[in-house]
Amino acid sequence: MTDEESVLAANAAYYDAFQKSDYPAMAALWADDGVSCIHPGWAILDGREEVLQSYRLILRNPDQEPVISRQARVYLTGDTARVLCIELVGGGSLAATNLFIRTGATWRMIHHHASPIAQRMTQAESSRRLN
Amino acid sequence: MTDEESVLAANAAYYDAFQKSDYPAMAALWADDGVSCIHPGWAILDGREEVLQSYRLILRNPDQEPVISRQARVYLTGDTARVLCIELVGGGSLAATNLFIRTGATWRMIHHHASPIAQRMTQAESSRRLN
Repeated sequence: MTDEESVLAANAAYYDAFQKSDYPAMAALWADDGVSCIHPGWAILDGREEVLQSYRLILRNPDQEPVISRQARVYLTGDTARVLCIELVGGGSLAATNLFIRTGATWRMIHHHASPIAQRMTQAESSRRLN
Repeated sequence: MTDEESVLAANAAYYDAFQKSDYPAMAALWADDGVSCIHPGWAILDGREEVLQSYRLILRNPDQEPVISRQARVYLTGDTARVLCIELVGGGSLAATNLFIRTGATWRMIHHHASPIAQRMTQAESSRRLN
């Protein structure tokens, strides 16, 4: 696998753990230290314990909507990489920044930031609202 | 200066360019390639031309509120670094992820992602609204 493929695989593993509410898989994905996270609307979470505690809560929340990742793009910067992708959640779209660091043969997550993309009305929707 | 101080200075220069609506300073801060940006509510911008075009629009917008940066924290990862900080904009707070890459003696920006932190009403505010 190329570095880009490995990073994309790590990014896919993140959404797979989310989809399956698999907390041990999620915990294994995150690096041992220097991690942080900004969930949509949340304040900044700093450190592995605080970040993993947020995933414990999110993954066991029965009202959590499925999160589908689309259009992932990798930007390699030596031993770190970022993936930008779209998250489809409950009829809305979010933009995500996912950061990874090379740790031996694997890439582990060091940061996740996701936030809603504002909906733009199409002309047809706009017209329906006006009529 | 330590690496951490240099990265913080680059982060401060970003908000300074914003504050002064200084487009040339903003353009000089961004790396030559591999850059991306997610403004609050916007879709993902990819590439220097698309990113800088967004700053041209934002910096010359007379309705753009001032952006004040607070509580910057640096996470160094070799020749890349991220700064997480709070942005105070028009009475609201945003959480920001700013990524930098070492280019010779300077750190240049490769990614910016900012998104609103949901407001929580204090008990006093809640009480005022109910009365």
